[in-house]
Amino acid sequence: MVIVMKQEATDKQIEGIIKKLVSQDFDVHRSTGVEHTILGAVGAQVVDIRDYEVLDGVKEVHRITVPYKLASRAFRPDGTVLDIRGVKVGGDEVVIMAGPCTIESYEQCDVIGEHVKAAGAKVIRGGAFKPRTSPYSFQGLGAEGLKAIRKAADKHGLLVVSEIMESSQLDLAEEYIDIIQIGARNMQNYPLLRGVGRTQIPVLLKRGMSATLSDLLLAAEYVMSEGNHQVILCERGIRTFETQTRNTLDLSAIPVIHQLSHLPIIVDPSHAVGIRDKVAPMARAAVAAGGDGLLIEVHHEPDKAACDGAQSLYLQQFTDLMKELRTIAAAVGRTIAETEEEAVKV
Amino acid sequence: MVIVMKQEATDKQIEGIIKKLVSQDFDVHRSTGVEHTILGAVGAQVVDIRDYEVLDGVKEVHRITVPYKLASRAFRPDGTVLDIRGVKVGGDEVVIMAGPCTIESYEQCDVIGEHVKAAGAKVIRGGAFKPRTSPYSFQGLGAEGLKAIRKAADKHGLLVVSEIMESSQLDLAEEYIDIIQIGARNMQNYPLLRGVGRTQIPVLLKRGMSATLSDLLLAAEYVMSEGNHQVILCERGIRTFETQTRNTLDLSAIPVIHQLSHLPIIVDPSHAVGIRDKVAPMARAAVAAGGDGLLIEVHHEPDKAACDGAQSLYLQQFTDLMKELRTIAAAVGRTIAETEEEAVKV
Amino acid sequence: MVIVMKQEATDKQIEGIIKKLVSQDFDVHRSTGVEHTILGAVGAQVVDIRDYEVLDGVKEVHRITVPYKLASRAFRPDGTVLDIRGVKVGGDEVVIMAGPCTIESYEQCDVIGEHVKAAGAKVIRGGAFKPRTSPYSFQGLGAEGLKAIRKAADKHGLLVVSEIMESSQLDLAEEYIDIIQIGARNMQNYPLLRGVGRTQIPVLLKRGMSATLSDLLLAAEYVMSEGNHQVILCERGIRTFETQTRNTLDLSAIPVIHQLSHLPIIVDPSHAVGIRDKVAPMARAAVAAGGDGLLIEVHHEPDKAACDGAQSLYLQQFTDLMKELRTIAAAVGRTIAETEEEAVKV
Amino acid sequence: MVIVMKQEATDKQIEGIIKKLVSQDFDVHRSTGVEHTILGAVGAQVVDIRDYEVLDGVKEVHRITVPYKLASRAFRPDGTVLDIRGVKVGGDEVVIMAGPCTIESYEQCDVIGEHVKAAGAKVIRGGAFKPRTSPYSFQGLGAEGLKAIRKAADKHGLLVVSEIMESSQLDLAEEYIDIIQIGARNMQNYPLLRGVGRTQIPVLLKRGMSATLSDLLLAAEYVMSEGNHQVILCERGIRTFETQTRNTLDLSAIPVIHQLSHLPIIVDPSHAVGIRDKVAPMARAAVAAGGDGLLIEVHHEPDKAACDGAQSLYLQQFTDLMKELRTIAAAVGRTIAETEEEAVKV
Repeated sequence: MVIVMKQEATDKQIEGIIKKLVSQDFDVHRSTGVEHTILGAVGAQVVDIRDYEVLDGVKEVHRITVPYKLASRAFRPDGTVLDIRGVKVGGDEVVIMAGPCTIESYEQCDVIGEHVKAAGAKVIRGGAFKPRTSPYSFQGLGAEGLKAIRKAADKHGLLVVSEIMESSQLDLAEEYIDIIQIGARNMQNYPLLRGVGRTQIPVLLKRGMSATLSDLLLAAEYVMSEGNHQVILCERGIRTFETQTRNTLDLSAIPVIHQLSHLPIIVDPSHAVGIRDKVAPMARAAVAAGGDGLLIEVHHEPDKAACDGAQSLYLQQFTDLMKELRTIAAAVGRTIAETEEEAVKV
Repeated sequence: MVIVMKQEATDKQIEGIIKKLVSQDFDVHRSTGVEHTILGAVGAQVVDIRDYEVLDGVKEVHRITVPYKLASRAFRPDGTVLDIRGVKVGGDEVVIMAGPCTIESYEQCDVIGEHVKAAGAKVIRGGAFKPRTSPYSFQGLGAEGLKAIRKAADKHGLLVVSEIMESSQLDLAEEYIDIIQIGARNMQNYPLLRGVGRTQIPVLLKRGMSATLSDLLLAAEYVMSEGNHQVILCERGIRTFETQTRNTLDLSAIPVIHQLSHLPIIVDPSHAVGIRDKVAPMARAAVAAGGDGLLIEVHHEPDKAACDGAQSLYLQQFTDLMKELRTIAAAVGRTIAETEEEAVKV
Repeated sequence: MVIVMKQEATDKQIEGIIKKLVSQDFDVHRSTGVEHTILGAVGAQVVDIRDYEVLDGVKEVHRITVPYKLASRAFRPDGTVLDIRGVKVGGDEVVIMAGPCTIESYEQCDVIGEHVKAAGAKVIRGGAFKPRTSPYSFQGLGAEGLKAIRKAADKHGLLVVSEIMESSQLDLAEEYIDIIQIGARNMQNYPLLRGVGRTQIPVLLKRGMSATLSDLLLAAEYVMSEGNHQVILCERGIRTFETQTRNTLDLSAIPVIHQLSHLPIIVDPSHAVGIRDKVAPMARAAVAAGGDGLLIEVHHEPDKAACDGAQSLYLQQFTDLMKELRTIAAAVGRTIAETEEEAVKV
Repeated sequence: MVIVMKQEATDKQIEGIIKKLVSQDFDVHRSTGVEHTILGAVGAQVVDIRDYEVLDGVKEVHRITVPYKLASRAFRPDGTVLDIRGVKVGGDEVVIMAGPCTIESYEQCDVIGEHVKAAGAKVIRGGAFKPRTSPYSFQGLGAEGLKAIRKAADKHGLLVVSEIMESSQLDLAEEYIDIIQIGARNMQNYPLLRGVGRTQIPVLLKRGMSATLSDLLLAAEYVMSEGNHQVILCERGIRTFETQTRNTLDLSAIPVIHQLSHLPIIVDPSHAVGIRDKVAPMARAAVAAGGDGLLIEVHHEPDKAACDGAQSLYLQQFTDLMKELRTIAAAVGRTIAETEEEAVKV
């Protein structure tokens, strides 16, 4: 913490602040300049800097250490590669997670799962508990949905990523889910973050619509501080004044997170743009910017989807996109799993 | 829903859309203009307008009905006045809720409660479960805190408003809280909204940092659709690019909500501005703009507060502010409870 | 400037930075802590802090002095009261400026001027050069418009505030305008700012839609650095994600500006909310929050207005509002000019 | 325009609105539903929809046609490819424009020009008139700067893109500049837009920090409506709450603009992220998303740059980036000019 005193600050005021800092276990370094006195305070405690801003004689206070530790790059300078039942997230491969917005039936999961697996996806996504803005919209199949997606995933050799909305759903997660998704609306639902932090199930943590990247890392810290270090961050668009897209996808989050944190970061272009024909360009951009994976909505019959059909890709669109993504991944020194078909060719 | 067709849309495309609308129980009205054909669709179903936007030949789709019903002004054109154990919210009186950010002890609640009551507050606020951005910050006293604030409130004749963070805390709420606060971070925590909706305890619903006013009303609709119609909305600042204040207090929310909804709306200036010396001007402005109440942080020793001390008013500041607010309330045809002292004078 | 070094920074890196700082005429104070070394640099030069952020071994850089001087509170701690031909802005009186969005004719200015003067306004507003989002919208009457508003103002004893859009219009301004308005879209039009800075005509500087308050003060500094210190700031709403209002009126700008700067700040509620029925609540709130004046759109026939009729008050609405504002001004220790009628009564 | 009447609207109110619409040359189509009457109005006039919103009985008004015409996709469905002295913008090739933030000397332009040309750039950028937030920062070399960059460009076979800030600089532009840049702060400087619209010099129009994409197209319409149809749009980041980057680069602007407009769109990653090490990932993402070009800051001695050195690439970084961009361009079916060296190899 750096405290800049006002030009007219008295010695007594400065002494008082130094005393307060010392009482909070800070080492204090005082620099006296022509215009300002500057106090540099170094310590381990997390304090509310406004407690110093309101003191007499203080001009400005700056925090000099980030309030997250386990999530910071310094904690693991070489970066983290998660190994989730053999699927590596954060390594050379760009991991593709794809599937419907909402789980509708086993048949649906089976058809989509078979297709996305063949195209190179490693994880199937699909929601059983849906956070819907309107109470009158379809809220998901619940436990039945989780059973369906699990069965399809096992049949096709895929992992399951699915959202839970409160700690009481953790038992179901243990049984059916490989990667627990925490949705954007729950990014600061602290009881839930602590709950998943007490499990050893990998967590996909989506950035809240108005969360800074620092807030996102603090949310990850909540999970990690309980013992679960397997966290994947996910950029999915922030809320801005622009209305042509559902949200504004902030792809600069990728290089920023890679600098600030050792955790992998993936991108959900589907929710960000909200409309099918803009998903592919943004998926390509996310890989080009260095994203560690993608979360993409795919449906075999988008026109009949229970939810978000307009932003779901058709099966063939997904296959075409995967081919494009593979060449872009190669251009940035990454890989994307080959389809069986292509693997055979080689 | 109004669907504007592209100039080049074919009759077949138009017929297809009409068929789809009718299958979703919409009445359809077709207007053929020189440039565009417009389809007006009237019905009760809530649909995702993007499902129509992606259809061939469609240029634009506009929603013409708001997706909230119970929360809309049309549901109760004369407005709602809640009667919470004798305290009326939404009527002529501007209701003042004041107290510490965090409950620290019974003594603290007692001292602050006595003071704010004397100054004219009707409700004491104080958090037992604190949503803190950092996992390493103080998280609140929990049940012990609720007991303390309840005891102080009963002693001084105040109601208690306090936040809960998950449905498992509803039993405690039933026992100790008069008005359940749903915090900004939980505004779209749907299991929690449904949970409080199943009680008959009045709910203070804070606007999320990136929630539109329409989102706020939809969150209220979640609570109301479960049967609990006692909802008070609360403006507490939205996230913008401005960094001089913690958040940007959007006071135009007051006239907008009063037009769109029958629910009362109060304002929390303390969290919006985040620093003590800007609380009073914004509290005055909130009353002048027609707010139905205020939620203000007050502490007898802000310098020692466990949380948000920098934004808490000193006791005397609160008393002074209440005097100012009374004259402003009078200027807009409202009242604020007189202190005992003043009542005696008259 | 405060430079926080990385934990692993070498002595050589630190020495290099100190050398660079000294070469830019900074006094440097070095504090060595357990975790970090902190360099405090005090000097007069304005530098781009990113030039230090990119140096090896640097963790973070904080600016400790604001880049504006003439506009800062420290320059005139007691605040500025402008005296514009007898009208004092920034003093006890809340100055009301009112009139049509666009000047349409002398008759229009005459009718509206007479009315707003009688209701207590001191300044008539009206645009001759209109910045319109669409090139196909009415762009204003130009010089003819300025003549019309000047004539009406002189007849009724009002000052004229009107916008100019480029330096070539300064001659017209000298002839017809008492207060030059710089519109929100031109807040960072630096040639224009310098141009008005070289005159001695008072300037009403509107905050840009995405300008921080620091940006606004820097824009004022542009004007002042050329010699013209008569600047009035104006909050008129910022762009956010909320769509119920045209812009989000940021009333906390008032106490923030009063703290950071000695310049007066007024509020334009009409452009912020964009619709008539929300102007009055926000005007009241602006006065309650301590605003030094208001800029309000008024029209005798809003339905026929050439521009922004929907946000213009009817004449009678303006008179009613003025009465409300007077009681609120009194509640915060300010005044608003009495109407002749009222003055007579007393 | 679609007008949705309130449920309780009277026939008289509806008739009145129809009359007003007809008087403004609209064709009106009336649909009477169970809940609402909907009026569809088709016509050529640009009206302020709020003029209808404030009328009695009206619930909502929606605009159904965009207010820009020349800039819309419909005007040239196949898209526009500009041919600027042989350099094609909007075609298969992704056009790279690179150079220093500020022109400092002929030597500087010569060194940088030679390098970027060799690496594949087609246009050299560099500012002679700099819009700086602080009046005390370096404001550019003016006409001398333009001469320097022109000379270097001619020597190396490059086009020149450079910013002008007011119409009085148009003569200099005619003499020295191939593509006039309109900066973000001037996107709604209408006299300037009209001024460049009256020339036949191609215009690079940067999106304002708080401009929607619709605003950007309207600004283009200003230029085009004066007769100059050679407009290149430029995404350079919008202002949001995130502070880790200078601005938030909105890459979804690319597919959105390609859908709404026939104009080419390029991306400036340097100003958006504001720091060197994040420029390359975002440049790659921009090409992957389908951008028609890039505007990149490059300097041979960034540490000594007069302006924005921290975001300028070193010469070698630029060369390396160009190689990466070429493979990404190929992956999306585009090209980037080969360097002479590479061309020789083939």
